[in-house]
Amino acid sequence: MKGGLAVFLHLAGMLDAPPVDLSWCFYAGEEVAREHNGLLHLWEARPDLLAADVAVLGEPTGGVVEAGCQGTLRVRVSLAGLRAHTARPHAGRNAIHRLAGILTAIDGFEVRRPVIDGCEYAEQMQVVSVEGGVAGNVVPDRATVVVNHRFAPDRTVAQAESAVRQLLEPFLEPGDHWELLNAAPAAPPALDDPVLSALVAASGDAPRAKLGWTDVAFFAERGVPAANFGPGDPLLAHTPGEHVGAAELAQVASVLDAVLRAEG
Amino acid sequence: MKGGLAVFLHLAGMLDAPPVDLSWCFYAGEEVAREHNGLLHLWEARPDLLAADVAVLGEPTGGVVEAGCQGTLRVRVSLAGLRAHTARPHAGRNAIHRLAGILTAIDGFEVRRPVIDGCEYAEQMQVVSVEGGVAGNVVPDRATVVVNHRFAPDRTVAQAESAVRQLLEPFLEPGDHWELLNAAPAAPPALDDPVLSALVAASGDAPRAKLGWTDVAFFAERGVPAANFGPGDPLLAHTPGEHVGAAELAQVASVLDAVLRAEG
Repeated sequence: MKGGLAVFLHLAGMLDAPPVDLSWCFYAGEEVAREHNGLLHLWEARPDLLAADVAVLGEPTGGVVEAGCQGTLRVRVSLAGLRAHTARPHAGRNAIHRLAGILTAIDGFEVRRPVIDGCEYAEQMQVVSVEGGVAGNVVPDRATVVVNHRFAPDRTVAQAESAVRQLLEPFLEPGDHWELLNAAPAAPPALDDPVLSALVAASGDAPRAKLGWTDVAFFAERGVPAANFGPGDPLLAHTPGEHVGAAELAQVASVLDAVLRAEG
Repeated sequence: MKGGLAVFLHLAGMLDAPPVDLSWCFYAGEEVAREHNGLLHLWEARPDLLAADVAVLGEPTGGVVEAGCQGTLRVRVSLAGLRAHTARPHAGRNAIHRLAGILTAIDGFEVRRPVIDGCEYAEQMQVVSVEGGVAGNVVPDRATVVVNHRFAPDRTVAQAESAVRQLLEPFLEPGDHWELLNAAPAAPPALDDPVLSALVAASGDAPRAKLGWTDVAFFAERGVPAANFGPGDPLLAHTPGEHVGAAELAQVASVLDAVLRAEG
């Protein structure tokens, strides 16, 4: 969100006397493991600085309000087998072969698309890693996948984990292991908030759902309505072709400026 | 084959004047990677010491002649995909999900059971390792399995590799990689050899096929008929319960002694 930071710095410099009580929060580590998130560090040290009626996150959204965010969780599923010599595999059970059912089920996951406050979310489920194997002549007794599930704001972490479990249950047996590795809750769109509603109007575009996870969820958890709004194409983020045009920076700055003045 | 070595040492000590021209060959590394195999080292240094009309390998066979041996090969199959954010997986392609077809096909491999010289072989195919994954929020663009195929003596390495390829072909696409990691040929039963035939008769049991790979193939490749015959249950080899009884050691020694005297 370097583009969003540029816009915020520009506005902070321009607005000598902001029309509303305004806090600019610049922090590190918003995309990496939760324990490195600067917003959490700030919250632990000075929660008073984060008191707010509403929050806007400068995530790349192409100058469109992206409402709420989907939650994300990762589970590690480890299947059991029984070792044997590969010349006599029927004396054992191949744990890697057992993955076939799980991979087929997840590949066939039917995307659930709940519409909340007019925004259509799209849940996803993907295997993000797989490992298994003992030796070149051994039927392996363990095979593991990590599954990443992205879930819509109408579900809690527990409900979302339960949905993954329900999909994979037919392929699990005693001796297998199930572990929730990490999870971050979703955030509802909160577009009934008057400031966010004004932001949508000023942006000139219909809002859409944020499909990734962002710190909007941090604010939502603390009762602060929040939305994503910044320059830059989210599909280009983290790619070699990542860029943002000057016109888009100016447009986003202008929209935020207008909303701040209207609220003043 | 510590039991077989014990029998050979016993006979070597007992037979001051062997009734036939006899070479005892004790070597290291018969079960590990081919480059460490002592028989190969000896062959490179002194092939004349391995000149023979027939060879008996002291592998654990429970005192039954196990004829020939199956071949073994390993192929690494690496599937391609396209990276994307797991919140927008349709922008990419999950290479791990693609494994489902391959695992299902191999798990459903129909065991081919050719009968050669009255011995029934049993081909096998097992995935022995799997790996893949980029990061917890990335649709992975690569997933790899290693497949171990055990094949009967009526097929060459090339024919056996082709059989694996044929089974997996429906799941392969341009951009995938196929690599033959290693292979060792099978050996035919060679029970028409008069000495091996006499060994079968003296053992008192019908011969059976050797399903694993052994150095019988080393001799077969060099035109020397060979068979596996030694004390010890092959299903116990390399397990914590590995053992061999004194009676079985004595029986195997007695059979070999009788065959040697009869040939003398």
